[in-house]
Amino acid sequence: MAVRLRTLAERYGLELVGDGDVEIDGVCTLANGRAGGISFLANPHYRRHLSQTAASAVIVAEADASDLSTPGLVAQDPYVAYARVAAEFVPAPDAQGSIHARAVIDEGASLGAGVSVAAGAVVAAGARLGDGVSVGANAVIGRDVSIGAQTQLGPNVTLEEGVVIGARCRLHPGVVVGSRGFGLAMDAGRWIEVPQLGTVRVGDDVEIGANTTIDRGAVEDTVIGDDVKIDNLVQIAHNVRIGDHSALAAKVGIAGSSTIGSYCMLGGAVGVAGHLEITDKVMITGMTLVTRSIREPGTYSSGWPVATSGEWRKQVARLRRLGKLEDRVKQLESGA
Amino acid sequence: MAVRLRTLAERYGLELVGDGDVEIDGVCTLANGRAGGISFLANPHYRRHLSQTAASAVIVAEADASDLSTPGLVAQDPYVAYARVAAEFVPAPDAQGSIHARAVIDEGASLGAGVSVAAGAVVAAGARLGDGVSVGANAVIGRDVSIGAQTQLGPNVTLEEGVVIGARCRLHPGVVVGSRGFGLAMDAGRWIEVPQLGTVRVGDDVEIGANTTIDRGAVEDTVIGDDVKIDNLVQIAHNVRIGDHSALAAKVGIAGSSTIGSYCMLGGAVGVAGHLEITDKVMITGMTLVTRSIREPGTYSSGWPVATSGEWRKQVARLRRLGKLEDRVKQLESGA
Amino acid sequence: MAVRLRTLAERYGLELVGDGDVEIDGVCTLANGRAGGISFLANPHYRRHLSQTAASAVIVAEADASDLSTPGLVAQDPYVAYARVAAEFVPAPDAQGSIHARAVIDEGASLGAGVSVAAGAVVAAGARLGDGVSVGANAVIGRDVSIGAQTQLGPNVTLEEGVVIGARCRLHPGVVVGSRGFGLAMDAGRWIEVPQLGTVRVGDDVEIGANTTIDRGAVEDTVIGDDVKIDNLVQIAHNVRIGDHSALAAKVGIAGSSTIGSYCMLGGAVGVAGHLEITDKVMITGMTLVTRSIREPGTYSSGWPVATSGEWRKQVARLRRLGKLEDRVKQLESGA
Repeated sequence: MAVRLRTLAERYGLELVGDGDVEIDGVCTLANGRAGGISFLANPHYRRHLSQTAASAVIVAEADASDLSTPGLVAQDPYVAYARVAAEFVPAPDAQGSIHARAVIDEGASLGAGVSVAAGAVVAAGARLGDGVSVGANAVIGRDVSIGAQTQLGPNVTLEEGVVIGARCRLHPGVVVGSRGFGLAMDAGRWIEVPQLGTVRVGDDVEIGANTTIDRGAVEDTVIGDDVKIDNLVQIAHNVRIGDHSALAAKVGIAGSSTIGSYCMLGGAVGVAGHLEITDKVMITGMTLVTRSIREPGTYSSGWPVATSGEWRKQVARLRRLGKLEDRVKQLESGA
Repeated sequence: MAVRLRTLAERYGLELVGDGDVEIDGVCTLANGRAGGISFLANPHYRRHLSQTAASAVIVAEADASDLSTPGLVAQDPYVAYARVAAEFVPAPDAQGSIHARAVIDEGASLGAGVSVAAGAVVAAGARLGDGVSVGANAVIGRDVSIGAQTQLGPNVTLEEGVVIGARCRLHPGVVVGSRGFGLAMDAGRWIEVPQLGTVRVGDDVEIGANTTIDRGAVEDTVIGDDVKIDNLVQIAHNVRIGDHSALAAKVGIAGSSTIGSYCMLGGAVGVAGHLEITDKVMITGMTLVTRSIREPGTYSSGWPVATSGEWRKQVARLRRLGKLEDRVKQLESGA
Repeated sequence: MAVRLRTLAERYGLELVGDGDVEIDGVCTLANGRAGGISFLANPHYRRHLSQTAASAVIVAEADASDLSTPGLVAQDPYVAYARVAAEFVPAPDAQGSIHARAVIDEGASLGAGVSVAAGAVVAAGARLGDGVSVGANAVIGRDVSIGAQTQLGPNVTLEEGVVIGARCRLHPGVVVGSRGFGLAMDAGRWIEVPQLGTVRVGDDVEIGANTTIDRGAVEDTVIGDDVKIDNLVQIAHNVRIGDHSALAAKVGIAGSSTIGSYCMLGGAVGVAGHLEITDKVMITGMTLVTRSIREPGTYSSGWPVATSGEWRKQVARLRRLGKLEDRVKQLESGA
């Protein structure tokens, strides 16, 4: 499945530099280039590899084209162009439209054209799977779940009753959508459950990472917008709303009823407390603790950066002495 | 399945205000009220919606009863009353007592009356399932596991060998109970496994959230008390003990051999180091780092709250200069 | 299955103290000793139990041998010796070499001698399982996955296409290896996927904890070295490399393309940002935020330790005032 560089240039509207007849059969990094591989330069950190790469071709921005030591493709955004070109080399998926004999599909489920259901998957009554949906092995689709066209569910995914998933989504293995929200009331010294009568509605083109969990709403629904991208092991509590095009890195947690705007980016393990509002276009760096609403777009952070343990202990002690230090300064001021 | 407001008042011992003939067919929020919906006011933040809600009825505390613009129910604790009333509208579960033809149940397992086992679930020899237990699709119950009456296991749950689960528990999808504790010893530059010979004992009325993991004990058992409520993606290490009625929010992690008292509440992503003791009635706010035992009831916190990234960088720099600032103050004092 | 203490001494090359005829049938703690149980003393914190334990025997270091109140075994490293002795009492695994009738194994998969596949497990075409591999119930093995001899996969594990797992590994329930890396490029206001064309290569003797996720590489592979030990709910992003003999506690997250050296130990919930390098023999305490490379072996920390919420709020306020405090000190200095 090799393709000539010239063909790639034409197919993706990129400017060809050098020998267009070189054959490309896959991707490689600049540092570990190889004959047949195409690479890209997007992060300036790796520019030093450009002059000596063993790759057969490199995708670069115009500014870097003169530094090419190999044939190349010039793109306005080399990373976007690389993403398109690399898709040429993704292995073909399993044959579409096959229902495995060991899948368990209730008679009351409705399946569109070209739906695939792998071995051991269980599809309950009332579930509606759009055209081209694929369900991984041992995934479990609850009653009355609705799944839009071309959406792919990985192995061991669980969708609980009534969940709505849009078109062209990807749910990776172990994802749970629609589990009971953590709604509890204390009554005479014991917890009683607050029924969680909402569901989860996931938009189109959403990616949900492995073992991520999204709880159903208490009264109204938990809502994930279109083109939202969620990494692994993320927790999204009941009645959270996430705006279109936002991206959440791994291990993020959003507590109940908080709202995240559109085009937000949350770094790994960011925690957002409950009942907050984060406006559009907010970027939050990894492990930040968010305990208040954020109403202005921009970049936000918190967290105590790593030190040697000895220095850290001193920092902690100083922080604890800070009240006394303030008193000492006040004393000096009053004495002045 | 509508019910008159008067009927709800009588059934739950609540005081009726206004028209008792109004028919209620579900729940709604105050802000998005609708005809047929019953709502509640527990959080004063939402009081402003009370006068203009489109809900058909609202559950309120006595102090708010005079502000009702709709029929209502007056309760000592409106949230508790709401939890009871809302349970009227929970969809009926699947028929009890059915064993799916595609479930795999070892001959050596024993099942009580009315046990349900869904498609693809696997129940090993020696497992004992109490009356009315339900096992979700593709769940896996290991050898000699014991499950109390009326407990519900979601899809894709795994219970490892010998685990003991109480009555009326709910384990949500993807939960793992009884995996090997992380016990290792370094020997001549290589890790060797320390056998984990304890198990996990979970009390009655315990909820365990989606994809949460609870490890088996090393020598003795890991123990979860009665009426403990655990949210999603929580990690409970070997030999942890959690007292009755405690609640752990999502992403909490408790390291090995630590003990949490009764009626504790741990916020999201709280981390408790190993071999600590947290006494009863301790509340810990989200993302707190707990590196020492807590011997007094109360509310505890830590964490660096969010700022703009620019301000955060300045805060970090100031923290790092704090030792020098102390020196400068000392210098001033000695000069005074 | 009792064994005489003398036999254990001989079998593991340990020095016998006292009555070698005492029969040992399992393990116990010092605090909750019992007849027939063998315990150990490794943590000085528990020395106070040594004189009054009801255990039948105790494994101790030479320095503690004179304090034994029971028969004992003297070891250079009592914890390592205990790990070996305790292995005597691990229940025998299920019969090896059985393929359950309800397992689904593609004709194009190749299975070594003595492979076990439990009910509901699914093994795809091209998968190669080495001798003695065991696959848990409802686990899913993707196309062209390779698994080394004697490796054990728990229930509900998912290995995606092409993943390579070494020999003698243990993957606990719910583990996902080889899910798509979180590679995205923003193009004209929408996310496009960057194909993840690498895979995951896991070495020999690796343990991976319950519900942990390890993503496949973007261009090259994600690589886990030999004898690496990973706890539950850990996230390892695309193109991470972890050196031999390192151990990662629960809830650790390593962002894309970061490298962890050999013999590193990361405490619970440590977060490592992307594109960093951590050298060999680095220990990082729990919940530390690592935003820079670490080039010197040693122990590293960060994090704001727990306080009462009242004191914490004061600490936060003081931190926020720290810039002003610096100004005040400067003012005093200039006035001096």
